[in-house]
Amino acid sequence: MSTYLAPMRDMQFIMNEVAGLEEVCALPGNEECSVELVESILEEAAKFATGVLDPINAVGDRDGATCADGVVTATPGFKEAYQLFVETGWNSLHCSPEYGGQGLPTLVSTAVNEMWKSSNMAFALCPMLTGGAIEAIAHHASPELRAKYLPKMVEGSWTGTMNLTEPSAGSDLAAIRTRALPVGDGSYRISGTKIFITWGEHNMTENIVHLVLGRLPDAPPGVKGISLFLVPKFLVNDDGSLGARNDLVCASVEHKMGIHGSPTAVMAFGEGEGALGWVIGEENKGLGYMFTMMNHARVNVGLEGVGISERSFQHALAYARERVQGAPVGTAPADKKPILHHPDVRRMLMDMKSRTEAMRTLAYYVAAEMDRAHAGNEASRARVDLLTPVVKGWSTEQGIELASTGVQVFGGLGFIEETGACQYYRDSRITTIYEGTTGIQANDLIGRKLAREKNPGVAMRALLAEIAATVAELKADAELAAIGGQLEAGAAALASATDWLIANYEADTAAALAGAVPFLKLTGIVAGGWLMAKSALVARRQIAAGSSDPFYTGKIATATYFASHQLPFADAYSAEVTGGSAATLALAENLF
Amino acid sequence: MSTYLAPMRDMQFIMNEVAGLEEVCALPGNEECSVELVESILEEAAKFATGVLDPINAVGDRDGATCADGVVTATPGFKEAYQLFVETGWNSLHCSPEYGGQGLPTLVSTAVNEMWKSSNMAFALCPMLTGGAIEAIAHHASPELRAKYLPKMVEGSWTGTMNLTEPSAGSDLAAIRTRALPVGDGSYRISGTKIFITWGEHNMTENIVHLVLGRLPDAPPGVKGISLFLVPKFLVNDDGSLGARNDLVCASVEHKMGIHGSPTAVMAFGEGEGALGWVIGEENKGLGYMFTMMNHARVNVGLEGVGISERSFQHALAYARERVQGAPVGTAPADKKPILHHPDVRRMLMDMKSRTEAMRTLAYYVAAEMDRAHAGNEASRARVDLLTPVVKGWSTEQGIELASTGVQVFGGLGFIEETGACQYYRDSRITTIYEGTTGIQANDLIGRKLAREKNPGVAMRALLAEIAATVAELKADAELAAIGGQLEAGAAALASATDWLIANYEADTAAALAGAVPFLKLTGIVAGGWLMAKSALVARRQIAAGSSDPFYTGKIATATYFASHQLPFADAYSAEVTGGSAATLALAENLF
Repeated sequence: MSTYLAPMRDMQFIMNEVAGLEEVCALPGNEECSVELVESILEEAAKFATGVLDPINAVGDRDGATCADGVVTATPGFKEAYQLFVETGWNSLHCSPEYGGQGLPTLVSTAVNEMWKSSNMAFALCPMLTGGAIEAIAHHASPELRAKYLPKMVEGSWTGTMNLTEPSAGSDLAAIRTRALPVGDGSYRISGTKIFITWGEHNMTENIVHLVLGRLPDAPPGVKGISLFLVPKFLVNDDGSLGARNDLVCASVEHKMGIHGSPTAVMAFGEGEGALGWVIGEENKGLGYMFTMMNHARVNVGLEGVGISERSFQHALAYARERVQGAPVGTAPADKKPILHHPDVRRMLMDMKSRTEAMRTLAYYVAAEMDRAHAGNEASRARVDLLTPVVKGWSTEQGIELASTGVQVFGGLGFIEETGACQYYRDSRITTIYEGTTGIQANDLIGRKLAREKNPGVAMRALLAEIAATVAELKADAELAAIGGQLEAGAAALASATDWLIANYEADTAAALAGAVPFLKLTGIVAGGWLMAKSALVARRQIAAGSSDPFYTGKIATATYFASHQLPFADAYSAEVTGGSAATLALAENLF
Repeated sequence: MSTYLAPMRDMQFIMNEVAGLEEVCALPGNEECSVELVESILEEAAKFATGVLDPINAVGDRDGATCADGVVTATPGFKEAYQLFVETGWNSLHCSPEYGGQGLPTLVSTAVNEMWKSSNMAFALCPMLTGGAIEAIAHHASPELRAKYLPKMVEGSWTGTMNLTEPSAGSDLAAIRTRALPVGDGSYRISGTKIFITWGEHNMTENIVHLVLGRLPDAPPGVKGISLFLVPKFLVNDDGSLGARNDLVCASVEHKMGIHGSPTAVMAFGEGEGALGWVIGEENKGLGYMFTMMNHARVNVGLEGVGISERSFQHALAYARERVQGAPVGTAPADKKPILHHPDVRRMLMDMKSRTEAMRTLAYYVAAEMDRAHAGNEASRARVDLLTPVVKGWSTEQGIELASTGVQVFGGLGFIEETGACQYYRDSRITTIYEGTTGIQANDLIGRKLAREKNPGVAMRALLAEIAATVAELKADAELAAIGGQLEAGAAALASATDWLIANYEADTAAALAGAVPFLKLTGIVAGGWLMAKSALVARRQIAAGSSDPFYTGKIATATYFASHQLPFADAYSAEVTGGSAATLALAENLF
């Protein structure tokens, strides 16, 4: 096993030279942030990831969380690591100072979160879910609920969960059946079964705050009758001390293919008198509130794609540097070299590196746009809305592919569990499913973010206009002109698919939806290719200004690779969207 | 869990109407074969797969083979199933009647083998390895060895293995260290450690015949000094009875990500006085003999890609037909339907179905060409040589992707082990690695099968000429003209990549090798697209002739899907080959 080392140089380059950290630090509310402060935060986070989380990642895979009689015991070492995580203040990095948080920009927490996901994705899910719950409570709950719950959650003494899915309500949240009966004193009695609840039960903290979607008896049918409730594991007294155990229990934890360190609970609410809960915001508006959590979580899950790709890359690279096998082509047979010298292994590693950098750049770019949107920038808000499903869907789909490449680099050894490559492959497989499958992300992208916008396509066309400006810059530089041509072709493919979707969405929605996932991948490739090309432009300027940092040469190489090996696929995805839907839907159901 | 049902209609269509079963039956040596006989064989095989092998597939995953003190115990139920397999004669289907086999054409055994791989890939590895060992012995061993070992192996009373890999010799077989000392009486004492030995030890049969690569003391270095030895677990007396236990032992079995039912052994030869072995053929020519096994095994592993895709598809389809979730777009919200009605789910299943059919058609086509080559057809021999690495590499790479899609169709449930989709995903992951990684297949394709041919490119150009003829036929049919255009574009992409490789292979071999895997995928897509298009032509003729079999309508639909969703990617892969190698190799090693 290799040791995880945070890719500091690339992280800092993207934050400082592409995503605009300095400008983000200058936004109102970020006054205490500075480039230097961020540097030291990243250094500390990197140490924590390498020293605390990475060493217990394989342990979590082998000795996953267990459940007996409703009591879930975390992987050995996880409880201690969590305590240290909280004590060191990592849980509150991005939270509002109003509740004890450090209020750092999303751009900063994004880079830090990537390290948690690389070093221990199963562990990182716990603070991630807490963060989502904090967001929903902070934005929508009453002052009383906020005051009672947020300080403990921000410091990490209590964790949070999202309770959406039920056996009959997965992607279709309209089918939710969990019931909430008003008690009359502002509280509700909740009963129902929730499944796939990440860190739904554990022994790492003294309390767990569940956010639960349910229905009032008189609620309208469908998604307009869903309310969001706060349901704590232990009731909280007015002085903040813990009271009685609430009527909810973990019925079992799932036997999953990966993320074994993260208990995935079946939660039974109200098997007795009903679990006590409090409504968040207004009744029947729960779905909208839940989306506050979901959008937070979606970018974060996209970041899992980045993190696992990086980890898998480092792991494979270490092996490729050390495993001697055969002589490279054109050298004497006895002159055996590490497999990194073989062109096909080089191709696999270059592919992993380049695509991981592209995903990282997109995720950090969107994070910085979230900070700008938070400060009131409407164009940034539109960009975030457009690209959130892309960060989620594209990065996770790629994460699976790259973790698979990571296995391949090891050859036969890759298939042996002790090697460790399998864990990344297995862990990554959940990322395209939870927090909305890739299909759900893609439907959101072509629907709400494109064809069903108030002004259909305006957000995408604004992006395409920026890309066109970058193309012009690239073409003016002889050394980057080839990238410019490749990006231009990719953007043209994206533009024509965009036009087709807007022209056809209303008249033939099924045909549009049949091309949704190819369109999402197309958008990811072009957006990623754009940001890699912008990175190459920055690198060129640095070299022209006299920098001899080899990092810049490397960045031009990975950007060139991305342009010549990923952007060519844009045309094919575009063809699937504009010319393929009839074929996708043609086969009669009984002929499958 | 769904039940596996062999896709009989598609199998028979491909065999009879695309691959030319009738013509294959008419080849010399196949006189006893007939279309009717094959039909009844397939029916019996389908029953065996559904009734015996499929039910113990998940068992093998949960309760894999175990090893204690050198004794490997197969999964519960496997020994009984194997006995039944042998008794029913399945082991000898393709073997020569000279040794008790049934001598059926490769085309027939290929269809039957697909069923074994779909229903239980881990189990199927055991007879697959035996079959490879039989081929090598039958082609290269002395009459004495053949007479002594083949009858028992053909009937399946003894199984066979391939012992190639050593800790320092994986893809680089030149590094093999296992030693063989001539005893003087025609036997040798073998010592060394072999790893990743599939079914290297088990309790299903009374003897195991190991084929082992090793070196004589005076052997030349490298691959020209490797000999192949037959090393039985139990020595065989001249009367055919079993004698003493040979000096070889299973040191352990690997803890793998998948195919848990198949024990992957570490084999220690000659820890005492040396294991007794007999050379196969001539000394120092073992590598060539081993390739007899390898080529047999490569098509067979490619078939694992087909089999696991089919199984995963059936499993996902059954769920998509039964799982009700949400109302399809354009219908009333209360009108909930099975998820097969959602366009994105339809897309996933259509993708699985269409690509699986394309892989199956290619594999069966190559199998029929093997039969023609066996009967002396040189053009068929060249076609088999060209496409063997494609069947292996392309089908297995796709098998992984499609098994992943199978997980995705299930949503959250897909990640839960009990659902069963994970097993196909995990099992499939080995297929791009063993019997030569995809990189090794691709290097073989662009080297020995293309640029380093006696007449570089002649085999590929012969294929391209046949494709051009099919394009002309398609274009003459208004309803298939679009497929014709897409196939034409794909073939043009393949032609230009072929030209580029031939022009550059000698001068810059590393650059050529950097594009080898994209070229292999390109070849797979175009060859698969060609055969799907040919299938559509057959279907059109049947419909024109008055057939009302809906299968033909369905075949046109899956061929149309393949042409509009897979062939567009040919251009991108071609661009990677012709324009991407510099970028792949540009990054300095220290900058990774």
